[in-house]
Amino acid sequence: MLSSADDARYMAAAIALSQRGRGRTGTNPNVGCVIVKKGVIVGRGWTQPGGRPHAEAMALADAGKAARGADIYVTMEPCDHDSERGPTCSRLVIEARPARVIIATLDVDSRTRRHGIDRLGEAGISVSVGILEQEAHRAMAGFFTRMEHGRPHVTLKLALSLDGCIARADGTSKWITGAVARRHAHLERARCDAILVGSGTLEQDQPGLDVRLPGLENRSPQPVVLGEAEPPENWVQISFPEEISGLADTNWLLVEGGAQTAASFLRADMVDRLLLYRAPIIIGGGLPGIADYGLESLDSAHGHWRREDTRDLGEDRLEIYERAA
Amino acid sequence: MLSSADDARYMAAAIALSQRGRGRTGTNPNVGCVIVKKGVIVGRGWTQPGGRPHAEAMALADAGKAARGADIYVTMEPCDHDSERGPTCSRLVIEARPARVIIATLDVDSRTRRHGIDRLGEAGISVSVGILEQEAHRAMAGFFTRMEHGRPHVTLKLALSLDGCIARADGTSKWITGAVARRHAHLERARCDAILVGSGTLEQDQPGLDVRLPGLENRSPQPVVLGEAEPPENWVQISFPEEISGLADTNWLLVEGGAQTAASFLRADMVDRLLLYRAPIIIGGGLPGIADYGLESLDSAHGHWRREDTRDLGEDRLEIYERAA
Repeated sequence: MLSSADDARYMAAAIALSQRGRGRTGTNPNVGCVIVKKGVIVGRGWTQPGGRPHAEAMALADAGKAARGADIYVTMEPCDHDSERGPTCSRLVIEARPARVIIATLDVDSRTRRHGIDRLGEAGISVSVGILEQEAHRAMAGFFTRMEHGRPHVTLKLALSLDGCIARADGTSKWITGAVARRHAHLERARCDAILVGSGTLEQDQPGLDVRLPGLENRSPQPVVLGEAEPPENWVQISFPEEISGLADTNWLLVEGGAQTAASFLRADMVDRLLLYRAPIIIGGGLPGIADYGLESLDSAHGHWRREDTRDLGEDRLEIYERAA
Repeated sequence: MLSSADDARYMAAAIALSQRGRGRTGTNPNVGCVIVKKGVIVGRGWTQPGGRPHAEAMALADAGKAARGADIYVTMEPCDHDSERGPTCSRLVIEARPARVIIATLDVDSRTRRHGIDRLGEAGISVSVGILEQEAHRAMAGFFTRMEHGRPHVTLKLALSLDGCIARADGTSKWITGAVARRHAHLERARCDAILVGSGTLEQDQPGLDVRLPGLENRSPQPVVLGEAEPPENWVQISFPEEISGLADTNWLLVEGGAQTAASFLRADMVDRLLLYRAPIIIGGGLPGIADYGLESLDSAHGHWRREDTRDLGEDRLEIYERAA
């Protein structure tokens, strides 16, 4: 008999695997899955680029016959709706005859929600739901945001001085943060489907927006410009923040500024996460990171952001805030 | 025989005591002292308001005859220059006949430097110097800054939003931070001799600058205004940051803004410590905390500030930076 601590540990491993697909699964959830038998992980899988095969299919193929009688940990309820692209995961799981299926969170797609777990239960498989549910929700937030709000999950990233500037008054912004922080920011790019800047930033900085990390160059997200600037080849152009709903295959969007673009996403209440790289420098009278977004009073500024993590990155400090519930 | 770990522990206690006098010892160092005999602290003392009696005199009076053969931990070399206000601490210590005197840091006053320890050594007392020297230096930084630069130690305090604003565009600043952070800021006031704001802040906010903490009301620092505003009764007025050198009885100065005042102290290279209370709110297009202070390039902004501490204060975060060596 496994303890709930063991269950949580294996689920944490499945959640970690789920991040491997992040930013490449289109509108599919980036699910992770591990299969455990007698204390040994015999199968691992995560949603593949484009959204198929699913994590469970990958893990079951990895485990082979060892899946029989094993415990399957999966970050989301196995899919139960037919697709031209392959069999449902609920069917694959049942055929593998595991002892238990442990699920972090239910699907929110009405074609599957509860159908997946009901199907497993009818087949005589023990099913548990809810282990590390909150962590799993965060790990697949792009999918859930799309299902709930019809748009990608939005991270607003800013590299700031202590006094909240993103550049000197003359626009100079190289560099606010150090090499470690900048590499971390590139890793965040690799975890998104699309990346957006405003017209002003495009015209002034002509940013590449690619992932410049060895081995991850092919993880560069789709570049998007907001506004009227002439977009470079292969860029997507939108006129309003609301148009991010129409971005193809995008669960995760990274918004990199500048100040007007940040404000327009805040005004539209479309920022889910703040990624603030804070350098130990004072610019003084520089360009502020966020322009007026229509805040009506100081009171109304409070209660919207909850600090989720902070860490040192070289001399700099990363502060991550998430939308308060 | 005491281990050096014991020595460090007792010296840490002496340093903690030194903070009780901080902001009330005039131009004297705020020294702390503990006397230890057979593992028991038999005497404690710190520099009294106005600068006398000194910490050693207080601790020796507290210990009485128990000081004989004991170990005396003191954060700074005992004074060795005669004063109308009482005997030298070196003489008091010798008369008490301790076994050892453990000193964190030497005095920098040429009337005493090394004379204090030489006098003790000549009297046959064992003397150690240098334990927790850096910590002691920080704890008495007001005195050392005055001796080295002829001016008080300056802390610049700002209450900021995530985007570096100290108010909305219309000047509204109540409140950026929460009750816990504001109380902490009042505690910092109580630890300073004087507190300064610019003319604009005085005219706009009419701040009391007093310590509004139960039991510490009498610890309110001397209010000072920088600039041309008509000062309220009992305030001191100066025209340039450099004039803080002339503030009476001031080792520790707290500068509370606004943006122009912060910039003028930065321009004069007179900020030793940053006390940033950071609230989890976004103002957007508000008043920046620090105005242009003449930064010549982004490169030259780096390397000046080292993070010394961060802590949570309710929903807010306190970040303390110190001048990098």
